[in-house]
Amino acid sequence: MSGILTTLKCSSRFGNIGILSRFLNTQSHFQNINSNHHNQPIYCKRQQLFEDITSRRYLHISHAAMAKTALVVITTGSEEMEAVTPIDTLRRAGVEVTVAGLNSAGDTVMSRNVIFGAEKSLKDALASAPFDAIILPGGLKGAEAFVESEELGEVLKEQEKAGRLVAAVCAAPTALYRRDLFLGKSLTSHPVVQERMSAGGKYQYKEDRVVIDGNLITSRGPGTALEWSLAITAYLLGQEKADDLSKAMLAK
Amino acid sequence: MSGILTTLKCSSRFGNIGILSRFLNTQSHFQNINSNHHNQPIYCKRQQLFEDITSRRYLHISHAAMAKTALVVITTGSEEMEAVTPIDTLRRAGVEVTVAGLNSAGDTVMSRNVIFGAEKSLKDALASAPFDAIILPGGLKGAEAFVESEELGEVLKEQEKAGRLVAAVCAAPTALYRRDLFLGKSLTSHPVVQERMSAGGKYQYKEDRVVIDGNLITSRGPGTALEWSLAITAYLLGQEKADDLSKAMLAK
Ligand SMILES: [Cu+]
Repeated sequence: MSGILTTLKCSSRFGNIGILSRFLNTQSHFQNINSNHHNQPIYCKRQQLFEDITSRRYLHISHAAMAKTALVVITTGSEEMEAVTPIDTLRRAGVEVTVAGLNSAGDTVMSRNVIFGAEKSLKDALASAPFDAIILPGGLKGAEAFVESEELGEVLKEQEKAGRLVAAVCAAPTALYRRDLFLGKSLTSHPVVQERMSAGGKYQYKEDRVVIDGNLITSRGPGTALEWSLAITAYLLGQEKADDLSKAMLAK
Repeated sequence: MSGILTTLKCSSRFGNIGILSRFLNTQSHFQNINSNHHNQPIYCKRQQLFEDITSRRYLHISHAAMAKTALVVITTGSEEMEAVTPIDTLRRAGVEVTVAGLNSAGDTVMSRNVIFGAEKSLKDALASAPFDAIILPGGLKGAEAFVESEELGEVLKEQEKAGRLVAAVCAAPTALYRRDLFLGKSLTSHPVVQERMSAGGKYQYKEDRVVIDGNLITSRGPGTALEWSLAITAYLLGQEKADDLSKAMLAK
């Protein structure tokens, strides 16, 4: 078994042995894979490993289990930096990121009129659910659309229930407030919605730049987006990976 | 004359009295405007002032003189955060930013596969030249295209000659190196191109996060993009404006 783990480390596509150990988490899985390879190291490349596994009818192990996955939802008025920073950071880390438009795929006019291409609509993206992380950028107008969306509300509720990560920045935590999600948790937001988020004592409101409370990671604005994204990276792939990225990206 | 200046300060669209004092820089201009308004305060709104001025055939004062202008050039492989951060920051500051594709307008696949929409091709954008700032994001593949582009080389050469701002981050300073621009200046870059930028003693290479040397502002990577963008803001609109933005954006 140590032979397999050593070999897997050669693949930069995996990045983190935790990804594999997560689904290769029973001795029988290891033994099956191992014996099928006649004690040869298993292939390192993702596609080959995927084929190895699926051909052995481990069909409950989805492609999504190979790498961590994240869904970043954007819509008209979403904040550019708050959207692009987690996408960029997590893709550098090897996370499979899907950029979904709340209402539709295609051109999305962000808060300062930069046009982003949403790869899929939220509805189509959900065909690949579950995601290890659901990530919500701010921008006042974009966050307002998140607040109003029943569909997104359901997705977030399901994510909370399953104990998977939700990350929201700036005005986006108001979408959690609206649906009574993550009640009692510590969180933060942009100062402009601090009063709104504090009303009713639903949350332990903090003024820290990034607040991590279990499977909820919140942050304050465009200037904290990179710290927030690195905290998401650390949550999904470990602190070492986040530290490496922080250095490569020249984070402060 | 102090009455005029006081009045102009009421317009948030101007942001900075320096913009006006730049073209209202002779006593006769002030007198003409003043007398035409019969000693009434001149209009604060940009369009009205523009019409006032043009109707008096100050036609050498272009629309561009009203607000600061910046041209951000992107191309396939440009770094998302390094492109979007100056666009976002400068638009918040009231700078008129044009996002130009090096070779064409439209969908541009950035370094981590986020799709940005370029508003114009560089060629079409140059119809509105000159710009107060020309801004180059990094990304290794994007910067390589900048290095190879004769058209961009000419634009940068002209910008340097006119004493207007060039700002480049990450690998983008290699485009200056390639054309022997800004020779002798202090600058920085991403550490991966530090050796290349240091060769031949063309520049005073620094390892600071942001290096400002006259009309050249360089920086190191995605994690320094906001500091770089705030330095560009300060250069164009003053430190106070940059400090206000820094606070609103929750910069560190
Ligand atoms: Cu925001």
